[in-house]
Amino acid sequence: MSQYFADIAPVTYQGADSANPLAFRHYDPKEKLGDRTMEEHLRFAVCYWHNFVWEGNDPFGGQTFERPWFPADTMDLARAKADAAFDMFRILGVPYFCFHDHDVRPEGDSLTESHKRLNEMADYFETKMADGGPKLLWGTANMFSNRRYMAGASTNPDPEVFAYCASTVKACMDVTHRLNGENYVLWGGREGYETLLNTDLGRELDQMGRFLSMVVEYKHKIGFKGAILIEPKPQEPTKHQYDYDVATVYGFLKRFGLENEVKVNVEQGHAILAGHSFEHELAMARTLGIFGSIDMNRNDYQSGWDTDQFPNSPSEAALAYYEVLMAGGFTTGGTNFDAKLRRQSLDPEDLIASHVGAMDICARGLKSAWRMIQDDALEGPRRDRYAGWESDAARAMLADGATLDGIAADAEARGANPQPRSGAQEKLENIVNRYV
Amino acid sequence: MSQYFADIAPVTYQGADSANPLAFRHYDPKEKLGDRTMEEHLRFAVCYWHNFVWEGNDPFGGQTFERPWFPADTMDLARAKADAAFDMFRILGVPYFCFHDHDVRPEGDSLTESHKRLNEMADYFETKMADGGPKLLWGTANMFSNRRYMAGASTNPDPEVFAYCASTVKACMDVTHRLNGENYVLWGGREGYETLLNTDLGRELDQMGRFLSMVVEYKHKIGFKGAILIEPKPQEPTKHQYDYDVATVYGFLKRFGLENEVKVNVEQGHAILAGHSFEHELAMARTLGIFGSIDMNRNDYQSGWDTDQFPNSPSEAALAYYEVLMAGGFTTGGTNFDAKLRRQSLDPEDLIASHVGAMDICARGLKSAWRMIQDDALEGPRRDRYAGWESDAARAMLADGATLDGIAADAEARGANPQPRSGAQEKLENIVNRYV
Amino acid sequence: MSQYFADIAPVTYQGADSANPLAFRHYDPKEKLGDRTMEEHLRFAVCYWHNFVWEGNDPFGGQTFERPWFPADTMDLARAKADAAFDMFRILGVPYFCFHDHDVRPEGDSLTESHKRLNEMADYFETKMADGGPKLLWGTANMFSNRRYMAGASTNPDPEVFAYCASTVKACMDVTHRLNGENYVLWGGREGYETLLNTDLGRELDQMGRFLSMVVEYKHKIGFKGAILIEPKPQEPTKHQYDYDVATVYGFLKRFGLENEVKVNVEQGHAILAGHSFEHELAMARTLGIFGSIDMNRNDYQSGWDTDQFPNSPSEAALAYYEVLMAGGFTTGGTNFDAKLRRQSLDPEDLIASHVGAMDICARGLKSAWRMIQDDALEGPRRDRYAGWESDAARAMLADGATLDGIAADAEARGANPQPRSGAQEKLENIVNRYV
Amino acid sequence: MSQYFADIAPVTYQGADSANPLAFRHYDPKEKLGDRTMEEHLRFAVCYWHNFVWEGNDPFGGQTFERPWFPADTMDLARAKADAAFDMFRILGVPYFCFHDHDVRPEGDSLTESHKRLNEMADYFETKMADGGPKLLWGTANMFSNRRYMAGASTNPDPEVFAYCASTVKACMDVTHRLNGENYVLWGGREGYETLLNTDLGRELDQMGRFLSMVVEYKHKIGFKGAILIEPKPQEPTKHQYDYDVATVYGFLKRFGLENEVKVNVEQGHAILAGHSFEHELAMARTLGIFGSIDMNRNDYQSGWDTDQFPNSPSEAALAYYEVLMAGGFTTGGTNFDAKLRRQSLDPEDLIASHVGAMDICARGLKSAWRMIQDDALEGPRRDRYAGWESDAARAMLADGATLDGIAADAEARGANPQPRSGAQEKLENIVNRYV
Repeated sequence: MSQYFADIAPVTYQGADSANPLAFRHYDPKEKLGDRTMEEHLRFAVCYWHNFVWEGNDPFGGQTFERPWFPADTMDLARAKADAAFDMFRILGVPYFCFHDHDVRPEGDSLTESHKRLNEMADYFETKMADGGPKLLWGTANMFSNRRYMAGASTNPDPEVFAYCASTVKACMDVTHRLNGENYVLWGGREGYETLLNTDLGRELDQMGRFLSMVVEYKHKIGFKGAILIEPKPQEPTKHQYDYDVATVYGFLKRFGLENEVKVNVEQGHAILAGHSFEHELAMARTLGIFGSIDMNRNDYQSGWDTDQFPNSPSEAALAYYEVLMAGGFTTGGTNFDAKLRRQSLDPEDLIASHVGAMDICARGLKSAWRMIQDDALEGPRRDRYAGWESDAARAMLADGATLDGIAADAEARGANPQPRSGAQEKLENIVNRYV
Repeated sequence: MSQYFADIAPVTYQGADSANPLAFRHYDPKEKLGDRTMEEHLRFAVCYWHNFVWEGNDPFGGQTFERPWFPADTMDLARAKADAAFDMFRILGVPYFCFHDHDVRPEGDSLTESHKRLNEMADYFETKMADGGPKLLWGTANMFSNRRYMAGASTNPDPEVFAYCASTVKACMDVTHRLNGENYVLWGGREGYETLLNTDLGRELDQMGRFLSMVVEYKHKIGFKGAILIEPKPQEPTKHQYDYDVATVYGFLKRFGLENEVKVNVEQGHAILAGHSFEHELAMARTLGIFGSIDMNRNDYQSGWDTDQFPNSPSEAALAYYEVLMAGGFTTGGTNFDAKLRRQSLDPEDLIASHVGAMDICARGLKSAWRMIQDDALEGPRRDRYAGWESDAARAMLADGATLDGIAADAEARGANPQPRSGAQEKLENIVNRYV
Repeated sequence: MSQYFADIAPVTYQGADSANPLAFRHYDPKEKLGDRTMEEHLRFAVCYWHNFVWEGNDPFGGQTFERPWFPADTMDLARAKADAAFDMFRILGVPYFCFHDHDVRPEGDSLTESHKRLNEMADYFETKMADGGPKLLWGTANMFSNRRYMAGASTNPDPEVFAYCASTVKACMDVTHRLNGENYVLWGGREGYETLLNTDLGRELDQMGRFLSMVVEYKHKIGFKGAILIEPKPQEPTKHQYDYDVATVYGFLKRFGLENEVKVNVEQGHAILAGHSFEHELAMARTLGIFGSIDMNRNDYQSGWDTDQFPNSPSEAALAYYEVLMAGGFTTGGTNFDAKLRRQSLDPEDLIASHVGAMDICARGLKSAWRMIQDDALEGPRRDRYAGWESDAARAMLADGATLDGIAADAEARGANPQPRSGAQEKLENIVNRYV
Repeated sequence: MSQYFADIAPVTYQGADSANPLAFRHYDPKEKLGDRTMEEHLRFAVCYWHNFVWEGNDPFGGQTFERPWFPADTMDLARAKADAAFDMFRILGVPYFCFHDHDVRPEGDSLTESHKRLNEMADYFETKMADGGPKLLWGTANMFSNRRYMAGASTNPDPEVFAYCASTVKACMDVTHRLNGENYVLWGGREGYETLLNTDLGRELDQMGRFLSMVVEYKHKIGFKGAILIEPKPQEPTKHQYDYDVATVYGFLKRFGLENEVKVNVEQGHAILAGHSFEHELAMARTLGIFGSIDMNRNDYQSGWDTDQFPNSPSEAALAYYEVLMAGGFTTGGTNFDAKLRRQSLDPEDLIASHVGAMDICARGLKSAWRMIQDDALEGPRRDRYAGWESDAARAMLADGATLDGIAADAEARGANPQPRSGAQEKLENIVNRYV
């Protein structure tokens, strides 16, 4: 038990009228929507990196946070960090957490030493998890911070980095499997390029495809039942990241025959950086059959970098969870907060209050989305808009055997002259606003 | 023969020191680079729409151009427009031109009347083309201007629009085939959505996939030997366009099994709107095996809309043609100027001068790229950077049979500790600047 | 009386539970917040241009709307348009409307004929306004659509355009004055440049300063009591517009000694295009003493052009009206909807429903803002954050007589070592979400 | 003398055909353009921070550079750093350098200790500068990296930070004065806000205005003859920075009566982040009479953060130096490279080669600009475009005594009907391309 949050009691649901900054106003974990509780729908996870590792640096400033476990360069400090982390998970009552290897253990002098430390920390986690603690939503490997990855991880021009990554991912998959993680995530922060001038694009994509294939094979070999997830992001830290967005990842998976083996972990902020809305990326993932999990946060629409702010828009959350529900809800996935405090938010209470607000926003969003679906508020008009396609003649145009010239001849014969109908966008937007 | 350009003589190459605004300073059509002349490398095409159809409107202003053939709503005016167009092609000495159906004929009262007019104009073109005029680089259908397409063309919620499009594309393919067009292009300006709230994404993608499959089948049926090209663009006029960028189009083609049948026509401005550099999109198309042709222009990097300006950066042109040359050069494709005058550039001479400058920029770019390749200026350092992958041990990691745990074990055993090498980006940028 | 909205009854307040798409759920005009009703706080205006003039064009498509008064090129059609407009004002129950000269009358063959027509329409409006109709929030001149303005209005390289503008603005000010308009707005859509290469920036700014000075003098000459307002926008239609944002306009006014004579009309969408939030621009205008009125709409954060959508974010509206209330509320200004339907929203009902939703969003925002202020929810923490500046020693540092070296010496002597305090951004964001 | 660059000989001019990556191809310091040499025109400065302080971190990665003087936390290491820095200045042959206090000395335990160390380093610099070394273009204070500045420097909610800043700026001005610096720069990296929710905009602007006034007073008190320069930037690290762009800074200076005392240091990358071209910001500064100096670099147009790359576009450099020359050239200002290596560019040679390329780009740009001016290539057409304003009647409209109604009456009487003329943008762009 850490003293870091000693003054803060577990957060409870106190209803929408509560002015308590450390109470839930919308998230009542046991409230049921259909046959799932909100806890089961939302499957919240708190991340290790932003909360317990990040020191508050930005490109023009150094450390602002003063956590007692910093610089966390010994195993004792790593355990002190874990104590604080699990305290925070307990205070928030979240069912899951997520981590990178690099978040939880100081790097060793060698690969084997690093892996040994990772396993020791996994032992420590196991005790805490057994003790009523949260489960592991997913594990992952940090293959972007250390200078060895500066030119890529699996896509590095140096094959020794590729080998290093194989060892690192294997170790992280082993630990994730041992801790009963429900997914394993790959975010290729350095899988991309800074300049095309020194890059062999085709070769690097082949390396990445081969690496991912081996990851999938290894998953089956060890019997890991969780999902393998890729997290798309268009750029930053690289100038161009290969996992640009959901559609790009889909093409990549198809190219290497992995579209049935790998899904996506979609992040709100990354969607925005790619020029998309979050709901677009979720709808695309659903349509392409690769929806996995979400990283919930928000990005400043007017800053070109990855701001990883806590979600605070009830409207955006409603549209996001609408897509999650339309996809059938989460299976192995969940709602991980990949969000960090602003660097001026120095206090332990800021860590708790930020998550409380974010969980409430998600709960509001989920409830709005649920009611829109129950009321057929959007699906009714949508079905009506496409109703023309339900006729036999219309279906025939999409069926095998239809030809361009055949359809053309029919259209010309009947003097086809289609008349537009209102798309009613503003009315639909107003409908959404009745629910948020 | 039109009088519109009566005062302007055919443009000739006069060398780099010429100050004549209507002379080529870099584009000498007969100059050879390797075994192709510059004319054969660049395969310039002038487009019909921006030069002879657009009236100078912008979102806050009406017509500025006063062309004698406006409003071009009769067949006589359509022929007058064609006369001016072919005069301009002749003055510039370009080997190709491109058009939409809608550019060349007034729309009729019915599909059949519209097709009839299109065919009459094709007859008119045939005479002009026979008479030493330019060839057709590609034809295409305008399925975005008329209000019937406001909610999509093949992706429309109304199946009658789908049928209308089938007839329209068939007619345009027929004309393109008759005129010996070397490609047929599909730009899905309205194939996307304005709001997800009224859109069935999955259904629309299926419609588009089916439509494209029928286009490919029809191509084979009529024996058209040209390439079918999709032109990616991320947004505008729609909020989201399904053919977002090269990687997205690739995924779409793979999904519908069309990746060997369809290539891409890459536009500089569209690349930029998608958050990419032009050379990125070209390199990606080359890597994925779907490089077809280019629409040359530029987009203001600081305006979020499609500005379709004439190219004017020697550096950007060099990097673009570098990719074209690395892809083996154009086969059926070419360099189409999808660029329009600024709306204040009112004079006939502006139409000519803008193309002269653009052709010169492309010629400069091509020559720079050619010399960089001859000198191994970029490929040498690139090969060196990836040289580690040439060892047998490195190749083995990418070969069948390699496993994550096998590679990991080896790496751990040898204490893998990769050391970064300089990426030398600035030096490579300096090298490029030696050539431009 | 027009038949255009014949099926639509006046919109009434029916409470938050209403599912009627043509009823107010939040805007109860007579509900009081403090000593003003919501109608008095919000001072809604409907604009003429987007609703009755715009034909649904976009850069890639033509007319989609089919209004019976189109093309409105005769005075009879202009009156039919006015009939429909005043019907809509009546149905919505808005207290104000706004228009450009160009919106309400067909342009004549000469300046004097155009002015004569404008005055005839003003006569027609007077009757309708007398008849319980809305008042005029502001008038303005359209000096951007016609090709004569393509290179600028008052900033044109051609002095004859400057003179033409003087005549046009005088006529519009006269009509605005006659109709008891409460403000006169200048939006310099073409006051900027497309390329610096042909632009004399200094000369153009001087022309604009001189023009504005004459406008102010003329206002006083005719006894117009309303405010003169400039509407900032960074770009589009120009590459760079001189009235870039609030801070830029302030510098311009200071340069020409007009900062006490002219205020700003701040538009949400323009704020976003300039890289700012709406509340930023409002706070800046308040701070600089030039807050006047607002154009309410929203811009797609991910489209670089001016989308002029109807507001639909309760959170954004709350923060905007918070600034309006902090500025003391509107005096001559109001809430004008400078918003247009999406071009697929074809029906008369779309015109009404879009405004109903927008008025409700504003009402929600106003009420949220009002309660935040009543509860001291944000101002309390803000005062506390700056409390250190209330000490005498702190105040002295900002007072006359303080010197850099004096303050430095004191700081060094006492070993100044300031300690940061949490900025608590997330807690404040959570507080806002308690109110929206 | 450091060993860091021991293998690298001083860089010399070897002509355009040289393929030596460490030779100048365009920058011949002694070549004269008019009565100044290129060295005198360009007044190059190398900055301390990016070259000798930055460790290669980015938001997702740690240190990549391994400089022998890192972590530079002792005075000995600070001197080793200085030795390397002055070696590099010598190798490049630049006439100037620039630094922040924080770049050159480790921070002490107290203000006075920090100042003492700064002065010791200034002693060390004096020796090196006396010894044929470069002069100081400008000095500045780093008031953004340390956590004490996280909420602002002079605009901090805590008055103790304001006092701390007074002491810091005084110390830096003293040192700059002692070293005969030609300017003193203020870049307010933290003078802005992260969220309006906790910010008192008006109060903070007043603090900043007062602070700057004291800086100006102190300059006069100590007899510093250099210019005080503000460096505009729109955002990053803050969400909004008060010194947004040149026009905003001008308004701020006017508000506090400082427009004749303070000029701007304009940075290419900051211009781009603000939505402007570099030449726009320079032209604006010239027009407003506040042009001071430039920070030369470039920003990736497609990354929303401050990339500080080395300039590499001959065209952009030409347009920038065109404005510098039109402003009369530099007086106290110069060309400081505020550019940093990409973090993968690890080698000492990269530091040199990047500057060599950048200096050559500037030299190419200057020469192009010079010739355009000599040839009247742009000014001729520009004068012609505005020639109408040279008539007496036109001048009278801008002169005192002209009135809106007077001009209007004249225009109506003569039936003013201005006719647009071509803006010829493409021709002008082609002209520029003849010179680059």
